[in-house]
Parts: sequence; C-alpha cells; structure tokens
Amino acid sequence: MPAWFWLVPLASVLALGAAYFFFSQMMKESEGTETMARIAAHVRAGALAYLKQQYKVVGIVLASLTAIFCVLAYVLHMQNPWVPFAFLTGGLFSGLAGFIGMRTATFASARTANAARESLNHGLRVAFRSGAVMGLTVVGLGLLDIAVWFFVLTRFYSIDDAHHVVIVTTTMLTFGMGAAVQSLFARVGGGIFTKAADVGADLVGKIEAGIPEDDPRNPATIADNVGDNVGDVAGMGADLYESYVGVILASAALGAAAYFGAGAEVQLTAVVAPMVIGALGTLLSVVGVFFVRTREGASAQQLLASLGRGVNGSAVLIALLSLAVLSLMGVPNLWGVWTALVVGLLVGITIGRAAEHFTSQGYAPTQRIAGSSKTGPATVIISGLGEGMLSVAVPVAAVGIGTSLAYFAGSGWQFTTDTMNLGLYGIGMAAVGMLSTLGITLATDAYGPIADNAGGNAEMSGLPPEVRERTDALDALGNTTAATGKGFAIGSAALTGIALLASYIEEVKIGISHVLDRGNEFFFPDGSSVVPGSGDALQELGLMEMMARFEVVLVNPKVIVGMFTGAMLAFVFSGITMKAVGRAAGQMVDEVRRQFREIPGIMAGTSDPDYARCVEISTRAAQREMMVPSILAIAAPVLIGVLFGVPGVLGLLAGAAVTGFSLSMFMANAGGAWDNAKKYIEEGHHGGKGSAAHRAAVIGDTVGDPFKDTAGPGLNILVKLMSMEAIVVAGVTVAIHLV
Amino acid sequence: MPAWFWLVPLASVLALGAAYFFFSQMMKESEGTETMARIAAHVRAGALAYLKQQYKVVGIVLASLTAIFCVLAYVLHMQNPWVPFAFLTGGLFSGLAGFIGMRTATFASARTANAARESLNHGLRVAFRSGAVMGLTVVGLGLLDIAVWFFVLTRFYSIDDAHHVVIVTTTMLTFGMGAAVQSLFARVGGGIFTKAADVGADLVGKIEAGIPEDDPRNPATIADNVGDNVGDVAGMGADLYESYVGVILASAALGAAAYFGAGAEVQLTAVVAPMVIGALGTLLSVVGVFFVRTREGASAQQLLASLGRGVNGSAVLIALLSLAVLSLMGVPNLWGVWTALVVGLLVGITIGRAAEHFTSQGYAPTQRIAGSSKTGPATVIISGLGEGMLSVAVPVAAVGIGTSLAYFAGSGWQFTTDTMNLGLYGIGMAAVGMLSTLGITLATDAYGPIADNAGGNAEMSGLPPEVRERTDALDALGNTTAATGKGFAIGSAALTGIALLASYIEEVKIGISHVLDRGNEFFFPDGSSVVPGSGDALQELGLMEMMARFEVVLVNPKVIVGMFTGAMLAFVFSGITMKAVGRAAGQMVDEVRRQFREIPGIMAGTSDPDYARCVEISTRAAQREMMVPSILAIAAPVLIGVLFGVPGVLGLLAGAAVTGFSLSMFMANAGGAWDNAKKYIEEGHHGGKGSAAHRAAVIGDTVGDPFKDTAGPGLNILVKLMSMEAIVVAGVTVAIHLV
Repeated sequence: MPAWFWLVPLASVLALGAAYFFFSQMMKESEGTETMARIAAHVRAGALAYLKQQYKVVGIVLASLTAIFCVLAYVLHMQNPWVPFAFLTGGLFSGLAGFIGMRTATFASARTANAARESLNHGLRVAFRSGAVMGLTVVGLGLLDIAVWFFVLTRFYSIDDAHHVVIVTTTMLTFGMGAAVQSLFARVGGGIFTKAADVGADLVGKIEAGIPEDDPRNPATIADNVGDNVGDVAGMGADLYESYVGVILASAALGAAAYFGAGAEVQLTAVVAPMVIGALGTLLSVVGVFFVRTREGASAQQLLASLGRGVNGSAVLIALLSLAVLSLMGVPNLWGVWTALVVGLLVGITIGRAAEHFTSQGYAPTQRIAGSSKTGPATVIISGLGEGMLSVAVPVAAVGIGTSLAYFAGSGWQFTTDTMNLGLYGIGMAAVGMLSTLGITLATDAYGPIADNAGGNAEMSGLPPEVRERTDALDALGNTTAATGKGFAIGSAALTGIALLASYIEEVKIGISHVLDRGNEFFFPDGSSVVPGSGDALQELGLMEMMARFEVVLVNPKVIVGMFTGAMLAFVFSGITMKAVGRAAGQMVDEVRRQFREIPGIMAGTSDPDYARCVEISTRAAQREMMVPSILAIAAPVLIGVLFGVPGVLGLLAGAAVTGFSLSMFMANAGGAWDNAKKYIEEGHHGGKGSAAHRAAVIGDTVGDPFKDTAGPGLNILVKLMSMEAIVVAGVTVAIHLV
Repeated sequence: MPAWFWLVPLASVLALGAAYFFFSQMMKESEGTETMARIAAHVRAGALAYLKQQYKVVGIVLASLTAIFCVLAYVLHMQNPWVPFAFLTGGLFSGLAGFIGMRTATFASARTANAARESLNHGLRVAFRSGAVMGLTVVGLGLLDIAVWFFVLTRFYSIDDAHHVVIVTTTMLTFGMGAAVQSLFARVGGGIFTKAADVGADLVGKIEAGIPEDDPRNPATIADNVGDNVGDVAGMGADLYESYVGVILASAALGAAAYFGAGAEVQLTAVVAPMVIGALGTLLSVVGVFFVRTREGASAQQLLASLGRGVNGSAVLIALLSLAVLSLMGVPNLWGVWTALVVGLLVGITIGRAAEHFTSQGYAPTQRIAGSSKTGPATVIISGLGEGMLSVAVPVAAVGIGTSLAYFAGSGWQFTTDTMNLGLYGIGMAAVGMLSTLGITLATDAYGPIADNAGGNAEMSGLPPEVRERTDALDALGNTTAATGKGFAIGSAALTGIALLASYIEEVKIGISHVLDRGNEFFFPDGSSVVPGSGDALQELGLMEMMARFEVVLVNPKVIVGMFTGAMLAFVFSGITMKAVGRAAGQMVDEVRRQFREIPGIMAGTSDPDYARCVEISTRAAQREMMVPSILAIAAPVLIGVLFGVPGVLGLLAGAAVTGFSLSMFMANAGGAWDNAKKYIEEGHHGGKGSAAHRAAVIGDTVGDPFKDTAGPGLNILVKLMSMEAIVVAGVTVAIHLV
C-alpha cells in the first residue's frame, strides 16, 4: 500500500472532527425567543417526519436491490461477492450525509435568525459554520467509505496483481450506485416536497392574497420551510456525496485500466492518486473554513471577502500543492496528470461563472428577462426559456474543450486513440480536480437554505424587519455561491459520465472472464470469440478493440436506438417530476384556499392556520410521485441491456449524458434567471414590488422553481445512476446474452 | 434505365397538372365583397413583400454557397462538378414550392370566407382544393427535380458501373442541401415573422384591450394574417419539400451502397425503388384528392369523413399496391423491403396519433393542462412543460421499434451488423413509406392556415358571426390533421437522420478516392492507410470496417465532443429563435400600445390603425434574427469537421439528431396542447371565455406559439441541414485532414 494512501483516512477523520466541532459550536448559540424556538421545533419535526417516510421507501428499495445482488452473487455466481455490501454502504453513507446536514440545518435556522438580530456578521458566522458541518461531513464520510473499502478489499485481493487491482476498483464503483439510488430518492422526493410547498405557498399567498413570503398567516409556510431542509439540504447532501465518491472511484478505476501493464507500483499509484487529491483538497477545505472563521471582529463586507478568499485560496492551493504531492507520490505522466487536474478546476470555474452570468441580476440576460416582464407573464416565460436554452453554449463548450485538453494531457500530449485509457484517466482526473475542494465550496453552498430558513423563522416570529433584511442579504450571497456549486456538480457529472463509459467496458471484461471461468466460450457480436483459458488474451484487448468487437459504432442500430432512448428518458424523467410538482402544488393551493375560506380568523391573525395538514400534503405527494421516475431510472439500463446488449447500453448512457447535460443546464439556468429577474424588479426596477411587471416576474419565478430545484438536479442524478448501475449489472448483461 | 423509372416524371407531371387545375378552379370563385377583396389584397401584398425580402437574403446565401462549391469543384478539385448546380436547383425548387403554396393561400382566403358565407361544405371545398395545390406542388416539384437530375446524371455516368451509380446518388443528395438551406430560412424567418405578430397581437389585443382575435381595431392583425401565410404555408411548403426529396434521395443512395456488389440491374432497381414508391404515392394522392372533391352535395359531416377516407384510403392503397409494384420491379428482398415500408407508414401513424393524444382537447393531457389553469398561469406553464416532456416517450419508442424492425426486415430478417447496408436501406425505405402519401396529407394540413386566414378576413370584413364559426370549425379540423402531419415530418426526419449517417460514410469514401486519384496515400486515424491505385480495395471496405478505421466508437473523445456539441446546438438554436420571437413580439407590443395611445379613434372604430407599420416590424425582425441561427447551422459541420474530422462530424450529427428529435417533439406537443387547452376552456369548461382560467390559458397558448411554430420546426430542419451539408462537404473534410 503506498504510504500516501494514509492521507485519506487522516483527512476523513479530521474533516469529521472539524464538522463535529462546528456543530457543537453552533449548538451553543441561543435559539432566541420562545416563539423562535417553537417555530424551529415545528420545522425540525416536520423535516424529520418527512425524512423518516423517505428513508422507509428508500430502505425498501435498497433492501430489495441488495437481495437481488445477493442472489446474483451467491446463487447465480454472476457477480463479485462484495457487490451487495459495497452497494449498501454507499446507500447508507449517502443518506447519513444528507441526514446530518438536514439535522444541522434545522438546529441552525433559529440560531442564525437570533444571531442576525445582533449583527449580519454574527448571522453569517453561524450560518456558514452550519454549512461547513454539511460540507465537511459529505467529504469526510466519502473519504471514510473509500478508505475502509480500499483497505478491506486489498486484504483479500493482491495489490501486486494488475487484474486484482482492476477488480478492487470496479467493485468499489458499486457503492457509487448505492449512493446514486439514495440521492435519486432524496433529490426527487425532496425536490417534489419543497417545490410543491413553495409553489403552492407562492401562488395563493403572494399572488392571490398579496401577503409576503413566510407570512405566518399562510398555511403552507411551515411546509415551505421544511421543504428547504429536505430538498435543498438533505437532497443536495446526498447528491454531492454521490458525485464526490463517484468521481474519485471512477478515476481510480480508470487508473487501474490505464496503467494495467505498467507494473504493480505504477498502477497502484495511479489508483490511489485521485483519493489522495481528494484528501488533500479536504485538508485544505478544513483550513479554509477555519481561515474564514477566524476573522471575528471584521465587518460584514470583509467577512464576505474572506469567504471568497477561503474558497479561492483553497482552489489555488490545491492547484499548487497537488503538483508537489503527485510528484512525491511518483505519479506517472506527472505534468499531464497535473494539467488535467488544473483543467478540471478551470472548467468548473468557467461553468460556475457562466451560470452566474446567465442567472445573476448583475448581468444582461437576467435584466433582459426582467425587462420582458413589462409585456406580461408570457414574454417573461418566452425570454426565460430562450435565455436558458442559449446558456448551455458556454458550459458545453467548456466541457468539450476541457475534455479534449484533459485527454490530450492525460495521454501524454497526443490526441490519438492509441493511448485511449491514459486519456480517459486524464478526463477522470479533471473531474477529481473540479470537485477536490468540495468541502469548502459545499459549505458556502449549504448555508444558503439555512439563511433562507432563518429568514422564515424571523418573519414568522415577528422579529423586526432589519433581521429579515440581514437574512435576505445572506440568502442572496448564497445564491451566487450556489450557482457556482451547481456548475461544479453538473460539470463533474458530465466528465464522470464520459469516463465511466470506459469503466463499463472494464466491467464487461470481468463479466466475460466469469463466463470463461465457468468453461463457456464467449462470442462477440462481430463473430469473434474468446475461449476458456484465454483470460489473459482478453485482458490484453484495448478499449478500441473491445469497442470494435462489440460494434459500438455510431451506425449500429442498437447503439442508435439506445441513444434515442437515453435522450427520451431525460425528457420523460423531467416531465414526470415537473408534472408531479404541478399536481402537488395544485393540491396545496386548494388546501390553502380551503383554510382561508373555512378558518375565518387566519387573515386577521386571530387564529392559527393548520400548518400540519400542508406538511402532510407535501409528504404524501413526494412519496407517491418519486416512485415512477425512480423505477424508470433503475429499470432502463437493465431492460436495454437485455434487449440490445453492450452496444445498446453504451448508446443509452451516451444519449442520456449528452442530452441530460444540456437539458439540466437549461433548466437550472432558466430557473435561476427567473428567480433573480424577480429580485431585480423587487430592487425597484420596472415599477418594483407590486407592479404588473413584478406580478409577471413572480409567475416566471414560480415556473422556474421545479425547473431548477426538482427536474434539473434530478436529471443529473438520473445520468449518474444509470452509468453506475450499468457497471454493476454489466456481468449480468454479458451472461444473459450468452444464453 | 428501368422502365418503372418513367412513372416518376409521369407522376410529377400529373401532380403539377392537377395542382394547376385546382388552382384555376379556386380562382374562379368570387372574393366576396369589396372589403373582403381589399383585405385579402393587403395580406397578399404584405406576404409578397416579406417573401421578396426573404428571398433576397436566401439568394445571397445560396449564391455565396454556390460560389464556394464552384471553387471547391473547379479550382481545388475537391468536389464533384455537378454539386454547385444540384445544390442550386434544390434551393430554387424548395423556394418555388413555398412560393406557389403561399400565393395560392393568399388568393384563397377571401374566397374561402366567401364560400363559407354560403355553407360550411362550400368553404371546406375551396380551402381543401387550395391546400391540395400546395400538397401536389410540393410532391410534383420534388419528383420533377429527382427525375430530371437522375436522367441527366445517368447520361454522363454509366449505370452499369456500380461506382458510378453511387456517385450519381450521392451527388443528388446535394440538392437536398440546397432545399435544406432554403427551408431553414423559410421556417426560421417565417416562424419569427408569424409568431412575433401573433404573440404581439394577442398580448395587447386579447389580454390587455380585451378585443377578440383578428379584430380590425388591432394594428397587428394584418401582420398576424400575413404571418400565417409566410410561416405556416410558405415555410411548411419549403420544409416538406426538403423532407420529401431528402428521404427519397437518401434511400436511393443507401440502395446504391447496399446492393453495390449485386450487379448493375439489382443495384439500379434498389436505387429507383424509392423514387417509384414516391411516384405511386403521388398518383394515389391525386386520386385521393379527386375522390374527396367529388362528394359535391354531401353534408359537412360526411365531407369530413370523406376527407379522412381520402387520406386513410391512400395509405392503405399504397401499402397494397407497393407490394405489387415492388414485386413487378423485381426488387431484391421483396418482403423485407415491403415490410420496412409498411413499418414506416405505421410509425408515422403512431407518432401522429400520439401527437393527437397529447395535444387534442378530447384527451386527458390537454384537459389536465386546462384544469391547471384554475390555479393560474404558473401551473398552466408547469403542467404544459411537464406533459410536453412526457409526450416524447411514444414517438421515440415508435422510432426505436420502427428502426429496429425496418433494419431487421431490410437486412433479410437478422439483427446483426454483417448486412448493415441492407438494414440501413430498410430504414430508408421506412422513411419513404412514411412520406409516400405526402401529396394528400399535406393537402389536409395546408388548408388549416387558409381557413384561419379566411376567419381573419371574415372578422375584419364584418361578416356575420356564423361565417367565423364555420371557418373556426374548418380551422379546428385542420389542427388535428396538422398534428398528424407534424408527426410524419418529425418521424421521417429522425429515420432519415439515421440513414444519412451511412450516406456520409459513402461520400467520405468518394472523398478518399479523390485523394488517391491525385496520387496521395490516405491515412486513417487508426494508423492504417490506402495507397493510390487501391480504389477498388477502398470500395470493398464495409461500413463497420470504415467506422473502425475512423474510430467512430462511443469512447473516442472526438465523437463525444461532437455529440455534446450537437446536443448543445439543438438547445442554442432553439434559444436564439425563442429569444428572437420574444424580442420582436415586445417591439410589436410597444408599437400597438403606441398606436392605441397616439391614434385616438382606433378603439371606437373611427380611424384605421397603421397596419403596414406592424408588418414592417415583423419583416425587419425576421430578416435580422434569421441570420445568426442560420450561420450557426451552416458553419457547425464545417468547423467540427476541421477540428475533429470524420468521428467528430458523425458525433455532431448523432448528437443533434438524438437530442433534436426529443426537443422538437417536446416543443411541438407542449405548444399544441396549450393551444387546445385554451380552446377547451373557450368551449365552456372551467368558467369559459373571459374567466381567470381562460386568461391563464391564453398565456400558456402565447408561450406555446414560438415553441410549436418557430423553435420546434426550425430544429427539425437544423438536424436535416447539418446531415446534408456534412455529406456535401465530406470530401473537403477528408482533404483538409490530409494536410
């Protein structure tokens, strides 16, 4: 085991320790008045109740899939015996990351509001520390899972045998699938919950009754605040846990394939390198978070600047230090691998900047959308859809150029397919570079919903308006960092998606060798075959050769049908989740209207609305509506695999990745731009709050809610889940086509 | 030359003769009152003025491209000397088809309104005859272009030499590109014109001023009527001309490649077969149109039924007669080819039915959207987007299953890649089957805008309301047939897109043989090469072998970057056209508001609004806004070809086809559903006209306008244009990568 590996568990323990430290620091703060504590307790209880329901559903799904994997592994011997367990830990840890983040956030909201009563400065510190708990928990648990499994598996497989290293790394990809299943339910269920409540509350409260957001007279307001926690916090935590673990494991697997014949030491170094970079970034994140924290007496302005310094400083430091560490580790193709890493960082920053350009009220696109509100809601929607569609140009170009450069650098400065595995390892390392400082970027991302909830708490507790203004300022800052964060998540998913195509082929090879081990000859679609005993010859087959034998070329109808299906799934999945939000929001509107009608004292403030009923509606809707899209996502790779084999599956993954990237970018940016176009008008442009333009912009914002927070992020996970799952069931796909 | 070929010019002449007959029949009708004639003259003049402007722009583009092709052909000797001329005729004929359709429609609107004064029956007959002029002109000109060029080229190339037949058929694909350039401008420019006027007129007229559609007090109303003619008639004519010619030529080219080694006679039969099927369908269409026409004294209900019988009868007859004709022609793999043809017909019908299900007010999806209007415009938009996204499932599944079956049947009942060219010929024939009866389906499609315009004429001329009710009834019937027509167009584009990937490879081979002819060795990306003099060996290379040598496999980063770019272009192209409509509609709103403000007597009806100014705004907007997306579409295949070569181009085409199909289906169906959800409410549901639900539904309809009539159809052409262009410049792509 390379000595540098031990940095991984070390960073994990430090990150989790720091997270615990920040958590207990935050818990020492006061929750404020009795009303504030009571409201926070309501939200906390609602969030916990929902999450219990969600985990029940996910638990059943995870248990069923684990049972299936046990049958495949122990009864049919089609799969590696570690798969069921790896799958399960991925699912559990992903859920745990979301749960811890959510608990922290629900404890933090009243405390942030209370701190904001004192000063913006204090409010920011409490919110940011709570965000850091989530950021560091996600990376800490991720590295822990990786370190433990790598340690355990390398006890059972020889790290001197190149085949074994490949088996170890591809087995570990299985817990990526567990995490993906968990995060799918968390994102889709949480996304439906939060947007049903948000849209429903806005439609009746802001548009019909003319009361402000988070007004305690609005029956859906508690549900809305619960939604922020279960969707934006727990959902995002599970999602990014999966992304983080996914890119590191994919790169490790690519490293094992790329340096297959280069000797055990070189191969192992390439495998461990992405883990070590992750650990290094985590250590820098911990330092960065502490660095932000130390400026106790600074002004708000300075604190914001120092927050930026924390994030940017970590990025610059990882770029510099990683060169030193990779060099000390003796990574092969040092400059190439390092360049790929830096390219990944730059692509992430470019995508984030582009997202900011297309969604922030400081730039032309959002201002144009705001301007189009003068001619009513229809033109707001048309221009938002138009700007959103246009906004995919820069991210796709960045990913295209980044992919090419990383491939070029990774394959030793050439752009041919002779060194394809090396090039793909470069692409994987670019994805690792992009997510290396996730600990701190997620911290600056996760505190947004906390500030949002603090604002809700302040409003409902009747705190003076300046408190709400402060929490709004924190929330607005969070929107900008969130745009960058989303850019990193979507960009890394695209790069990982590309890289995982190669991992799939590696897993197919393992599946074929299982077939050979059982004494069967294996026939490729092109008519060639491998016979039992020729396992070594099989391993020698390059990626291009495997693609040729499986005929994974663009004119093969199996590939084409797979691609069309992948693209279609991206749209259908988004359509189902959009419809779910629309339907659930409609129920919410009916319920709120009913309460306004039947409970007479609500608008006068003399009687309380029935908050719990609204929470229940969102919970039931989320539970019911997350099943169909999840089953679709899980079933598709298996079905296509059975019908069209390896070429069909690769077509499916490529089609979904290619369409899903543009579609989710479009939805995320359109939604963000509508949100901020509304804020731009609220700042006093085009007539300001209450004008016809503002009413039109609120409609745009409402349409954007499920776009950016339900369908968009869900799509991202759909693509990753299908890739991970295809890899896990590759052996089965191969075995079935033998029959 | 096979004797059956002569059916092609015969059918062409008959179709054009029938078109002329119907045109002169229609011209004998009276235009009605002086006001009616005057309004029709206004619209006709506006449409003609716009089209002149558009043809100027297109003329410059066509001339420039022709000049470039001349240089490539005569100076650099990189291209076949026929290419510039073939390109030009395609562009001219496509424009001519649109022009004739548009002129007919503008002559027909007042005549239809006048006929509707008498009876629904008479109105339908005039409108349908005028639609038939367009339908028969499109197929007649298409077959004429094909027949003349095939006749001319086979004088210069030997039809006994298999190589020559390949050269002839791929050269003919060039006029597909000319037609695609023309239809791009027609669809995008016309689509921007019509929707800017429509959206602008609706926003101020229906929503702000509360006056009905086509009210003469609305200054944008003439522009709106002009738009129907230049967008929905001229644009659609050019578009379907291109589709029709494209599928026949692609199939011919695939036939030449599929039966390359099978002897001159068999190869030529396979090449001529798709042309003959087109001619047969055209003859049946002429008969079908006459059949509809003969029922002079029938009731309206019976007339509609007879219209359906005309369309369905033609489809059943083509299915039966084609078997006889193909058998008499001695087409190889008779049952397979015929099955593919029938599969294509069924896929088209399935897509049309699915479109009807998702967009007609008789079914649940549209009714659900109408229901969501009770909670305001935001939920209308959300549910429309959701239903639209979901609606892509059936069309993609139909294309997937249809592609597989056609491939299976075409390749002699097997699903392997050994007989790939045969299978792709099957896919091509399926596309031909789908569009074989275009003459009559387009007739039932094109009369919709004519009826719409007749309604506008009736409204503006102050005819009694029952006339408007009759034209509305005709328009509504047209909406249903239009949904089917769009299904056929989009479905055939998807199938052709797949088939054209193979034609591209054939053209690449020709490009390589040019390289060899000039004494250079050609190196494939995989390192293998062909030397001068080995042209025969090159021709022997199968499609799979070519794909392997060019490394067009799914993990090649060049392919992947191409795919991401193709998907991105689909979104960016749609975004640009959506924004253009939003921007132009905003200008229209400002102008209409200004006229209401500054011309005092408009609302009282005492002074005329300045109609011409609104026509001018739409014209300028369309002219300005069509340049960027068109340049993008034309430049992309060249740029990607220069940067990433053959694998990049194939990735681009596949990515654009796959994403574009789902995206355009989504936009077409969402737009259609919003339109009919509004109509459903106008029928008296959810409060009927003037209710809050109706206002919300009108906003949905307005958003849907550019979706279904600008961005959606434009996207379809983008995909086809890029494929055609890639084929035309394939030789250049090859030659550049040699340098």
